[in-house]
Amino acid sequence: MLPTLTEARAPLTRTIATVNERGEAETISIPAERPLTVYVDKRELVTLMTLGARPEWLVLGYLRNQRLVTDVAEVESITVDWDVGSAAVKTRAGIERIEERTAHRVVTTGCGQGSVFGGLMDEVDAIELPEATLTQAQLYGIVNAIRLQESTYKSAGSVHGCALFRGEEMLLFVEDVGRHNAIDSIAGWMWMQPPDTMRGGDKVFYTTGRLTSEMVIKSAQMGVPIVVSRSGITQMGHELAERLGLCAIGRAMNRRFLCYSGVERLKLEPGLAEAR
Amino acid sequence: MLPTLTEARAPLTRTIATVNERGEAETISIPAERPLTVYVDKRELVTLMTLGARPEWLVLGYLRNQRLVTDVAEVESITVDWDVGSAAVKTRAGIERIEERTAHRVVTTGCGQGSVFGGLMDEVDAIELPEATLTQAQLYGIVNAIRLQESTYKSAGSVHGCALFRGEEMLLFVEDVGRHNAIDSIAGWMWMQPPDTMRGGDKVFYTTGRLTSEMVIKSAQMGVPIVVSRSGITQMGHELAERLGLCAIGRAMNRRFLCYSGVERLKLEPGLAEAR
Repeated sequence: MLPTLTEARAPLTRTIATVNERGEAETISIPAERPLTVYVDKRELVTLMTLGARPEWLVLGYLRNQRLVTDVAEVESITVDWDVGSAAVKTRAGIERIEERTAHRVVTTGCGQGSVFGGLMDEVDAIELPEATLTQAQLYGIVNAIRLQESTYKSAGSVHGCALFRGEEMLLFVEDVGRHNAIDSIAGWMWMQPPDTMRGGDKVFYTTGRLTSEMVIKSAQMGVPIVVSRSGITQMGHELAERLGLCAIGRAMNRRFLCYSGVERLKLEPGLAEAR
Repeated sequence: MLPTLTEARAPLTRTIATVNERGEAETISIPAERPLTVYVDKRELVTLMTLGARPEWLVLGYLRNQRLVTDVAEVESITVDWDVGSAAVKTRAGIERIEERTAHRVVTTGCGQGSVFGGLMDEVDAIELPEATLTQAQLYGIVNAIRLQESTYKSAGSVHGCALFRGEEMLLFVEDVGRHNAIDSIAGWMWMQPPDTMRGGDKVFYTTGRLTSEMVIKSAQMGVPIVVSRSGITQMGHELAERLGLCAIGRAMNRRFLCYSGVERLKLEPGLAEAR
């Protein structure tokens, strides 16, 4: 049984007055950013800073990726109210030992989740990623779909985008002020889909941000064996991708890319590299 | 009395094998990234993921910016040991109510600290920034100094750089996998300097990352009234900068920039905008 979600909407950009290098007034758009305090069964859990595009999916995916909830059916409803900046999560039977499970903190790299509750690494070795491959032509299709995507980034900058693909077909594109929020929103959305459509290894995860350990782990937790980024990779991201057998591709712009790990999942077609 | 700090060193980059779009093997450098678990008086506080360039300053600045330590003299020593990935902080008299003060969590935007212990916003209104101005020529000097700086970014990408300037003179340049670490390292370094050299509003803070609420608050907490970024600003960063009367300048590349707030601190010289 799926949870009931509100569909809270709020403006994604705002305009501000600036002065440029010629001393001229210039009005620009910047991304919105608002605090969202998450309450689980009336207990305050965390405050997330978010663009606010998909707050209910964000909260659901946050609970999922923090492994506080292991089955979407445990959640009865998520009610977001921007007037007070709150997301009220109602579970069907409470979350066991929530105090204890939220006590350990790891501050992760860069735009990392910020804080990932302990024990994540222990689970890495238990993850078995599905067999799946991607062709170089599909990879170029993904890069091109991102290039064409209308976005807050294009109008206001300063946000990260994430997308979920099936082959080169874009299933969902989400932006947020932090890329951890964007991937959590995708995780939340995936839980709201019919489970059989989300199974199988035919998914590819795209992020505009760096491939940090957290991005790699979250992708693996969602059962997505291939990640693509416009940016580079960090050492922990690389080590984890190798350990997981996850195909990590970065610096993907136009026809260029670097495959950092799991190259056996990428069907190289070098002839396409020169094509226009 | 200043704390005793180790000077733990570790390689900042490592090389990995990749495959490019032409199917060719390509060896590249990526930034190092290692977990550093911070113990305060033998009690585990947090695990930071860091490049590892300046771990002792990072830990000191982390304690400062989390407001767990209000005076550098409270810290007796910081001992970093990369073999076990630990930073042992010894305080002279313990930290009062440390359990309670680390209980509330805010996950901040993007490359935010990750988690900032509660109460930060309450302090914002108490901050009075020193009078200070920057000329457009000095701003160009700052942008140029950053351009010339040798860096891990240039050799391996995927890191954020932060710098502290006095006018256009660079006092310190620090990189880390997350920009929150880089600014914390600067905060730690500032505490290790003679206090009278760090007073006064003649400091300018530079970051390659976005001007988020956290960057603005941390800069203000360090008494630095002007921040410059290559990137843009988020809404919370903008609101806070306005509230603090802090001069926030973004999109600073070559001769271009946008001043988002506190323009009265910037002595515009529009004639320089066209100069080569």
